[in-house]
Amino acid sequence: MIKGARKDIASSYGNEEHILIQSINAFNETTRSLNLMHERLAEWYGIYYPEVRLGNMATLADLAMVLNERSSINREEIEGVLADPQQADSVYKKATASIGREMGPEEKAALLAFADLARSTNKMLAGLDTYIKAAAGRIMPNTVYLTNDKIAAELLAKAGSMERLAMMPASTIQLLGAEKALFKHIKFGSRPPKYGIIFKLPEVGNAQRDRRGMMARAYATKICIALKADHFSKNFIAEKLKKDLEASTKRINTKEIKPRPQRPAQPQHGGWGRRQDGFENRRQQWGGKGIQGGRSKGYKRFK
Amino acid sequence: MIKGARKDIASSYGNEEHILIQSINAFNETTRSLNLMHERLAEWYGIYYPEVRLGNMATLADLAMVLNERSSINREEIEGVLADPQQADSVYKKATASIGREMGPEEKAALLAFADLARSTNKMLAGLDTYIKAAAGRIMPNTVYLTNDKIAAELLAKAGSMERLAMMPASTIQLLGAEKALFKHIKFGSRPPKYGIIFKLPEVGNAQRDRRGMMARAYATKICIALKADHFSKNFIAEKLKKDLEASTKRINTKEIKPRPQRPAQPQHGGWGRRQDGFENRRQQWGGKGIQGGRSKGYKRFK
Repeated sequence: MIKGARKDIASSYGNEEHILIQSINAFNETTRSLNLMHERLAEWYGIYYPEVRLGNMATLADLAMVLNERSSINREEIEGVLADPQQADSVYKKATASIGREMGPEEKAALLAFADLARSTNKMLAGLDTYIKAAAGRIMPNTVYLTNDKIAAELLAKAGSMERLAMMPASTIQLLGAEKALFKHIKFGSRPPKYGIIFKLPEVGNAQRDRRGMMARAYATKICIALKADHFSKNFIAEKLKKDLEASTKRINTKEIKPRPQRPAQPQHGGWGRRQDGFENRRQQWGGKGIQGGRSKGYKRFK
Repeated sequence: MIKGARKDIASSYGNEEHILIQSINAFNETTRSLNLMHERLAEWYGIYYPEVRLGNMATLADLAMVLNERSSINREEIEGVLADPQQADSVYKKATASIGREMGPEEKAALLAFADLARSTNKMLAGLDTYIKAAAGRIMPNTVYLTNDKIAAELLAKAGSMERLAMMPASTIQLLGAEKALFKHIKFGSRPPKYGIIFKLPEVGNAQRDRRGMMARAYATKICIALKADHFSKNFIAEKLKKDLEASTKRINTKEIKPRPQRPAQPQHGGWGRRQDGFENRRQQWGGKGIQGGRSKGYKRFK
């Protein structure tokens, strides 16, 4: 019996979806850390070379590795980092005439270690990205075909397992990742969320404001079917789903949308969503008078 | 004139305190990222070796580098990571009998890259730590003597420059880092904060609850003097200050403290601090009835 139990546990550990969940979570967390590191690096490096500004932060980390001490500025090394020769030239000129601080040996070591860590992080993320692409393609090929590997993996991570995800209705899938807004809606009556993770789909996120909800709904229904195929039948039906989706997208985009109702005499709800009554904020609504100390008054009611 | 302006800018860039500020901020941010990575690694690695549990997360990252594939478990390598031979033996035994998942080559690459990044991060932090120690010792020797390099550097980072920090009164230094609680106090009348960054001093943080405020105050006054010496006179007066501090500490620790006032008939304030009226929460105060929907009612007042 113990042997049997061990086997069962082992088989449930044996599923690759757990690894995919860990990977996508690690990917998202590390991406956030990397963004912070890049911001810090730009600020730090700016003390030494305030004139050098690059849009691409990953390139800045590379540049910091070759362009550090004032005495050893090397044009070839800069050109090795910046593909555009014009940009390399401009950076070289700015660096040689920089009014920034001289870099002492200790500071150099600290800065270079930091820049190098940013580069390693970037490299690790690229590797993890490859794994996520491969694993998501194996575990949920239909869903990946309809969305992309990141969104599919994030849906899986939110649900916790393929089984739970495949059992979810389309409406739940539509709102996965919008839990905070959903509970705010349920508790305080704010406007309900229309999309969660699937907002990251360009077809949903870039849609017209009034059509986004419909787009999210259309995608969620098809993703729901795709997930069931991924988990149960293992058939590849995504091409047909995609065709259906394109038809719905077309219908949604050509649909006439009624203009929003104008401002009612009284605000209709006490929610935290976007104002529907045409006023930008409460001060405007109250004729510029504002509510003096409104927040604490509201609080005192509790006592 | 342009030359003169460039020189002025260069000299203000030339101050090492800016580098120290960047370093301590980078250190704190990266430490937070590393903690996240360690948590993620423990969860991820746990899928392969659920039986292996280590208290020290840095060691877990090292262990993941040598103990990965099931087929190549090597007792010497494990002993190379874990100094304690008994622990190494127990990990070896657990690992060989593990019911965790088999590690495929792709997964292995992803996990090892992640563990390796955690190790690099750890190494970078150690280097940065060395730099912060050295730089803080150079820039603010008196303050470092009274506190430690991290706290001194954090105070500097909060203030923005030595000049501003040296001009601050002791009360401001006492509350640096407690801005959120301070403004909550000013806006909503909650209890005022008693300490900010200096809570991290063991002498303050580990003091008796009723004496912590006094300790924080005593430290803040001496730190304030030390900062002035660091920035203006550059004398080393910290030994005398430390002696004075020890006398105050002794006085505070032997001082008799009046018991707290008992619950007043009505709560005295509508603040968000700790309740002074003897009730743990509002429900208890209302005789277990609670306030149904109180939060949204409070909100509706605004309309």
